[in-house]
Amino acid sequence: MKASVVESGEISKGASPRKGLIRGLSIVDFILRIVAATSTLGSALSMGTTRETLPFTTQFVKFRAVFKDLPTFVYFVTSNSIVCVYLVLSLALSFFHIVRNKAVKSRVLLVFLDSVMFGLLTTGASAAAAIVYIAHYGNSSANWFPFCRQYNNFCERISGSLIGSFIAVVIFIILILMSAISISKH
Amino acid sequence: MKASVVESGEISKGASPRKGLIRGLSIVDFILRIVAATSTLGSALSMGTTRETLPFTTQFVKFRAVFKDLPTFVYFVTSNSIVCVYLVLSLALSFFHIVRNKAVKSRVLLVFLDSVMFGLLTTGASAAAAIVYIAHYGNSSANWFPFCRQYNNFCERISGSLIGSFIAVVIFIILILMSAISISKH
Repeated sequence: MKASVVESGEISKGASPRKGLIRGLSIVDFILRIVAATSTLGSALSMGTTRETLPFTTQFVKFRAVFKDLPTFVYFVTSNSIVCVYLVLSLALSFFHIVRNKAVKSRVLLVFLDSVMFGLLTTGASAAAAIVYIAHYGNSSANWFPFCRQYNNFCERISGSLIGSFIAVVIFIILILMSAISISKH
Repeated sequence: MKASVVESGEISKGASPRKGLIRGLSIVDFILRIVAATSTLGSALSMGTTRETLPFTTQFVKFRAVFKDLPTFVYFVTSNSIVCVYLVLSLALSFFHIVRNKAVKSRVLLVFLDSVMFGLLTTGASAAAAIVYIAHYGNSSANWFPFCRQYNNFCERISGSLIGSFIAVVIFIILILMSAISISKH
């Protein structure tokens, strides 16, 4: 990528490698956004489609688990969906940055939006993680029973769905750092 | 970079208001860090010192609640403490930015560290919030009982301690935005 920019040549000597760096960062930014969007979509779908019905039932207890039983999981699916849509939309701006190296204000805007979405995603992921922890290990002080002992598949799926979300969280930190570097090179 | 070249030529007309803006942002940055450090310290102390013993007891059930009963609250206190220490240490860098307007690399470093600490704090705060929610409302599907019905004071304190943490979360978003603006003005 650096090479292509250098070949397009243009003017001053100092500016070209810097331009190449900025364009390179923009391209990586674009790719990482696609990865993060896929991760959050995967997380939202994985959590949203999880349900387990145990093969036995009694008169008093229902043996069926869906993510809607816990408001935190609903929030998790919502936040992942919102962030996924945002990431897809932000691809337009990211592509614009690849084409127009000089744009600075839009990069600052992107840092701001990224950090808001980063916050939203992190709240969803860690709230869900806290509940998954209780689901696995329970809490004897609060007399909360670990329902994972019964709902094995359900628990595996919801634990797995956290992974995509936390991958996206890490990507957001990288995106913010890269944006800051790009802005500093102008 | 462009600006620094102009600034090294001392006076020039365009640079002065920009310098003023950057310095202004640096000062606000310094103040906000103090506020955020105080908030996280307050949250950590408030959560860490909360305990309630009910004025009656039976043979089988212990009626005493401390934050250590729930690992999520221990994580909350830990993350808030780490972020508080970080914020106090970052004051040095923030002060350096007030004195030296031109510094860019250290600002990029600060954006990176800020976003990592933002992530850490948000995980702690939202995980604790998820547990506090269960403590207040319980969950009938999982048969988790809302212990706030007994431990009123304990619950009020832990709910209140979340506030400081979320104030710091919002401040972090502002800090990252302001750093991005400062960097873009160089």
